[in-house]
Parts: sequence; C-alpha cells; structure tokens
Amino acid sequence: MTPRIALDAMSGDQGPEVVVPAALQILSERDDLHLIIVGDEATLKQQVGRQSVSIEQRISIRHAGQRVEMDELASHALRYKKDSSMRIAINLVKEGVADACVSAGNTGALMATARYVLKTLPGIDRPAIITALPNMEGTCTHVLDLGANIDVSAEQLFQFAVMGSVLTQAVDNLPNPRIGLLNIGQEEIKGNERVKEAAKLLAASGSINYVGFVEGDDIFKGTVDVVVCDGFVGNVSLKTTEGVAKMISHYVKQSFNQNLWTRFAALISLPIIKNLRKKIDPRRYNGASLVGLRGIVIKSHGSADVLSFTYAIKEALVEVQKNVPSQISHILATLLSERRRVE
Amino acid sequence: MTPRIALDAMSGDQGPEVVVPAALQILSERDDLHLIIVGDEATLKQQVGRQSVSIEQRISIRHAGQRVEMDELASHALRYKKDSSMRIAINLVKEGVADACVSAGNTGALMATARYVLKTLPGIDRPAIITALPNMEGTCTHVLDLGANIDVSAEQLFQFAVMGSVLTQAVDNLPNPRIGLLNIGQEEIKGNERVKEAAKLLAASGSINYVGFVEGDDIFKGTVDVVVCDGFVGNVSLKTTEGVAKMISHYVKQSFNQNLWTRFAALISLPIIKNLRKKIDPRRYNGASLVGLRGIVIKSHGSADVLSFTYAIKEALVEVQKNVPSQISHILATLLSERRRVE
Repeated sequence: MTPRIALDAMSGDQGPEVVVPAALQILSERDDLHLIIVGDEATLKQQVGRQSVSIEQRISIRHAGQRVEMDELASHALRYKKDSSMRIAINLVKEGVADACVSAGNTGALMATARYVLKTLPGIDRPAIITALPNMEGTCTHVLDLGANIDVSAEQLFQFAVMGSVLTQAVDNLPNPRIGLLNIGQEEIKGNERVKEAAKLLAASGSINYVGFVEGDDIFKGTVDVVVCDGFVGNVSLKTTEGVAKMISHYVKQSFNQNLWTRFAALISLPIIKNLRKKIDPRRYNGASLVGLRGIVIKSHGSADVLSFTYAIKEALVEVQKNVPSQISHILATLLSERRRVE
Repeated sequence: MTPRIALDAMSGDQGPEVVVPAALQILSERDDLHLIIVGDEATLKQQVGRQSVSIEQRISIRHAGQRVEMDELASHALRYKKDSSMRIAINLVKEGVADACVSAGNTGALMATARYVLKTLPGIDRPAIITALPNMEGTCTHVLDLGANIDVSAEQLFQFAVMGSVLTQAVDNLPNPRIGLLNIGQEEIKGNERVKEAAKLLAASGSINYVGFVEGDDIFKGTVDVVVCDGFVGNVSLKTTEGVAKMISHYVKQSFNQNLWTRFAALISLPIIKNLRKKIDPRRYNGASLVGLRGIVIKSHGSADVLSFTYAIKEALVEVQKNVPSQISHILATLLSERRRVE
C-alpha cells in the first residue's frame, strides 16, 4: 500500500505557501507516496493549481475551517479548535486514513492534541520530542527529549532511551545504536539523583546498548547515536546549538563582506562555503518526531522553508515504512518483561 | 597597592609549561601587577629562568610539595592535598597575601577547596561559576551557574542573578546589566516551579534589571547581558556551545583542505578567517569566575594554552581592581533589606 501522509497546511509561519510547494516537490521526486493536504480548501486548490495526472492522483485536499495560531495555548487549541487543520491532520492518523502527519504548528498545541487524540503506547508514560543533529563523523546524533517533559523520573528517562534507540535503529538503519545519558562532568556532584538512577536502569538492561554518561559536546562528536535527557535540558541544548550556529554564520557573512578584497575571497570560496553549508545545513535536519504515541506525528520547524518542509515529510515517510510506533511498543514490552523476570 | 595574583602553576593539562610563560607574558605587558607562582620550586625556577629586573621584582615563587590531579575527587583533594599548589594559592588569598588566584585545575576540587578555605559571602548560600561567551552584538553575555550547583532553589537562582549582575557591571563597565532567566519556550509548560518562582523574586526586586525569560539561543544574540540558570543546564549549554563550535571549525578546515583549488581559496581567505577567529576565539573567553566567595578565584580551562591563560589572569586582575566580592556583598545586603522591608 502506498503510504499516505497528512500535512497540516495552515500552521507554521508561512502556512500553505510553504507546505503546498513542498508537497508538490516531494511528489515529483517520489512516486510511492500519497499526500493529504489539510486546510482551507479554496486556498489550497489555488495553491496546488494544475498538476500532471501522476501527481494529481496522489494528492488530496481535506478542508479545515480553523487554524491553530503559533502562540495559542495548547489547552485553548484542544478545546476550541476541533476543526483546525492541525486537529484534522491528527484525526486522519487516528482514523487510519493517514499513516502519519506533519505539522509546522506550535509544539505545545501539537503535542497536547496528538497525545489527546492518539494516546501513548502501552508502557510509555509520556511522549517525547526527538530530532537528529549533525556530528563530526558525518552521521547524525538523535537527541531526546527536546521540551515535552520538564520534570521527568528515572523510569521516563529509561523510556526515552528505548524510544530513541528504536527510532534511530529504524531511521538510520543502525543495528545497535549507542545510547548516552546526558550529564555534567564533575565527578563529585555527577548528575542529579534521577540521572544516576536512570543510568542504573539502562546498565541493567541487556537489550539497550547503553554506553554511559555523555556531556553536551558529545552530541557533536559522533561517539554516541542517541543522547537522552529531560526536556528542559534538551530544549536549552537545542536552542544553544541554533544560537551558536547563527552567530558563527553571522560573523562569517560579516567577515566576507567587509571590502572589495574580502568579497573577492568570498567569490573564490563560494563552492567551499556551499559544500560546507550542505553538510551542516539545519534545513536538512528539519523534522522532529513526537515519539511514544500510537501514531506518527512529525513536527516541522515553524519557520521552515520549502526545502526544510520536504525533509520533515521524508522523516514521516521513513517512520511509516519502518513502522516505528509498533517497533517501540514491541521492544518496550520485551524490555519490561525482561525486567520483571529479573525482579 | 600593586595587585598580587597567585597562580596555581602545577594544575591544568600542561602545568608550569603554560602557566610560567603566560605569567612572564603578562608581566611584560603590564607593570601594575605582581604574580606569585605556586608549585614545585625547582621546576618553577628553571622555567622562569633569567628575567629583566623589572619583571623579577614582580614575580615570586612559592613552593608547593603536591599537586591536585585533574581527575582527583574533590573530597580527596580537600583532605589529602593540603600542600598542593591549588590549596596554597587559595590559602594566599585567604591570608591576604594575594588579592586573587587563578587555577587550571579540576573544577570540582577547586570549588570545594575555595569554598572550604574562603567561605561564601554573607547572604550567599552557595558559590556559582560564571563565564563570558561571545554574542552577535560583538559584546559578551555572562552565563551562570555553569556546574557548581545542580539542584537549586528559586532563592539561589535569585542570588545567581545578583552575583551575575554585579560581576558584569564591574568587569564590562555596564551600568545596569540586563538579566534573563533561562527557560524553554513552550508557553503551556513554561519552566519548572523553581524558575517561575525565581522570576517572581527577580521581577519584585527594583535594583535588578530583570528582563524576563530567555531561551538558549538568546545567549548568543546579545539581547541580555547575563543569563541565569542552574548548574546542570548551564554546564550542558556551555559544553553544547563548545561542541557546535568545534564541529563547525572541523568542517571548515576539511572543506578548505580538499584539493588544490580549495587550498588556494583558503590562502586567499586567510586574513578573513584570522579576523573571524579573533572575534569568536574561545581562548579570549578563558577565565571563569567562582563567584559568591570571600575572595577572587578564577578557573582557567584545563587545556588552556599560554594566550588563554593570560586572559584568565586578566580576568582576575579586573575583578581585583573592581573589588567584585565586596560589591556583591554590598548590593546583596541592600537587596535583602529591601525585600525585608516589603515583607
């Protein structure tokens, strides 16, 4: 069966102006995909325009009368936006009409709605947000949680590790992903109690390739495949990453734009800078997964452009093909029964 | 009186081989400074060698029979390394022989020893670690705590804000530093209870220029002068910063080193890259302060080179000239009495 992915077209900073071109782009690249674009029907029809038969057969429009604002409270969206593009896209996953959905809407509302509509997998207390970041080895490191859970227990950190391991295994085709627990380096006060307790749970589990504590810089070294932390720490680390990258890029531009000579040097260096940009272009890493749900929900960056949004759709497609939620559920069940046997 | 600064010469990855040349370098640049180099006398005498009278008059050697290892437990160092270069350098501050000390030794041992020997200022529960990071405005942003305190109360976050404000005011000559409280951006679950409570304390204080919550990327935007957080989050953020910067630098080198053409482009771009490096060179930001103590203690990066270590000494010198500890103490007393009046 051709995978069917629902796209929340009204969310994000630019809404359909980004989502529709991204949809058309990816449909022209891949023929094993059907997209359901959810939003204001008139707007979407106009945006889609006339397409080739091959594409028109694999695109459908589903009307939604509301949209969730980027700064809307999750509780408000949940209660009053039952006809929003976000809610309907998630409903389509629940009803089995779509195999996954992608939204660039606000994270709080998306997480709350997805959790309410889809529910968590058995054995998972709360879903988490996971994304991939580039590393020095040229591969990528998955980090979770990125902000869905602030106060977490050791058991939840353990669940994050399981979810991260399964997702990375599926998405990156890695047989046995190395899992690191984010901590700080001072031996005497090494981590708080929850982190220490989670380390024990992970070390005791035979099926998780737990390699020990890692620090913030290890995310970019490529020495582990998954970094596990609570949502507060993960969110700060992710935003710090964005901030440093933007600052460096700002200074690079400034330095190459000072005078005629530096602009000449920039011209000479252009292919190199382009190549470099390609390696660590944040757009290629767009598409965070809301893991731990009975369904696949991908969160695109709110300010995503067309290229970025296609990466979020690709992430959804891979997770559909690998059936990530059922894999998480399966492995978690094995681990939990393993632990019960030990106890 | 000429400021006197004690240098722990045996700590850090390279010990006296970095500390002594850095000391000689800075003494040749500035004549308003006396340095006391603490460590193995024979080694230090040999390293110092023969110097001009002007320098020899402003350098003294203080023998220490032990050294604290880089991976030594703080409790072990505290109990068994009473004759270490680290301990003696701190003792010199306690005794008033030195106005400050600088060490590249392990942070845990340095913090524990400094706290034990010097004690905290009145009104300060626990000292914190603060450093400056570059931002897009071309100024710098101070961040604390960077790892001394994992589980902190709202009251402690408030104290960190006061210490950060005073130190930034003194070191950067900023009359009214803008203080931000590090948080994550999702409105519904905005921060944990401690952060929210600390925000209330800060907003209620007339003497602190509190501007509100900030996120990880704000550190590098230059929209605030001080970012306050607990030591776990701060340490992860700092290490993340180092990791991202190293990864980008790795890819830049790789890209410019691919073939003849890219190496030619690198040659053309060399002055630009140098200029860029100067702006965000981490060595220029070496020298974290242990604030909240009855004395000035500066922590240099363990892997600091000579240039880096001179920056740590300069940081100590500025704090001596501005008398940071007594300023913190003074302002904190005012704030606390202000709060008592309100209550």
